[in-house]
Amino acid sequence: MREVEVKALVMDPTQNMPVLLLRDLQSSKVVPVWIGQPEATSIAMVLQQREFPRPLAHDLIKAILKGLGGDLDMVVIDSIQDSTYFATLHIRDHLGKTLEIDARPSDSIAIALRLGSPIYVSEEVFQVAAVEMPTVEDERQDFPEDRFRAFVESEMKLADFKRFVSEGGV
Amino acid sequence: MREVEVKALVMDPTQNMPVLLLRDLQSSKVVPVWIGQPEATSIAMVLQQREFPRPLAHDLIKAILKGLGGDLDMVVIDSIQDSTYFATLHIRDHLGKTLEIDARPSDSIAIALRLGSPIYVSEEVFQVAAVEMPTVEDERQDFPEDRFRAFVESEMKLADFKRFVSEGGV
Repeated sequence: MREVEVKALVMDPTQNMPVLLLRDLQSSKVVPVWIGQPEATSIAMVLQQREFPRPLAHDLIKAILKGLGGDLDMVVIDSIQDSTYFATLHIRDHLGKTLEIDARPSDSIAIALRLGSPIYVSEEVFQVAAVEMPTVEDERQDFPEDRFRAFVESEMKLADFKRFVSEGGV
Repeated sequence: MREVEVKALVMDPTQNMPVLLLRDLQSSKVVPVWIGQPEATSIAMVLQQREFPRPLAHDLIKAILKGLGGDLDMVVIDSIQDSTYFATLHIRDHLGKTLEIDARPSDSIAIALRLGSPIYVSEEVFQVAAVEMPTVEDERQDFPEDRFRAFVESEMKLADFKRFVSEGGV
């Protein structure tokens, strides 16, 4: 398994979908994960250290988990099937027992960021999905898929995502 | 407090927003609650007894709550301020202690429906927000607000909402 961090939340203009870039802490590679707009909004709120006036579903999960004496040890993006990523929440209850709960990567990451829990990607997923981190100087020859190249060319970063959110992402 | 049930999930075409109709079990009145599209989709899935291929955030809340030995005693829509409704999740932990967690009505109802927990509306909210349940024969003179009258005229019911969901609500 490889620990990753949320490097950026960008827009893929070809699919008009938000993409999370998860950077491997041990290399310069990133795993792109396409997610839904509500989950992207929820993740953007944490990355921007902003809060909604009212709690989102992921805020409720944090409150319930803490209120019941549990904690989130880690989230793991375990596998990929037909372009769908599967993740697991590793939750520890008040007795120290671990529960594994099947989840989408987007929800998992939105929760992990709120609780300061580490995010891992399985070696299997990493081998299939990781690409070199895009940079401005990059000749853009390293990206295997057109759709990924397309959003890299748009050079959207978190600042741009802010506009997306304020223009109706919520 | 008045116990309510989810009578219908309809579209308000004037605002292009989903509206939940919560019917008072002791009268013919309903409390309309405008909600966001992601939460409406999640609620529609339960009302239609359908499941997403992957768990939604509200499914995670159910799994976490049950996994940690908790339960949801009830949800209460407590108050209304500037057209925003406030709700509380009344959660019981494994020792029988009750936690009260601030939540949006939409999330609260999506969770209550998954756990089979009762939904209540405070007398304060009921007095401010309740209207007569719309019917086809109705002369439509009982609805205080144009926007409410407008969506009643559209006669959208759950069947129509299905189409809304399949056309991109997800």
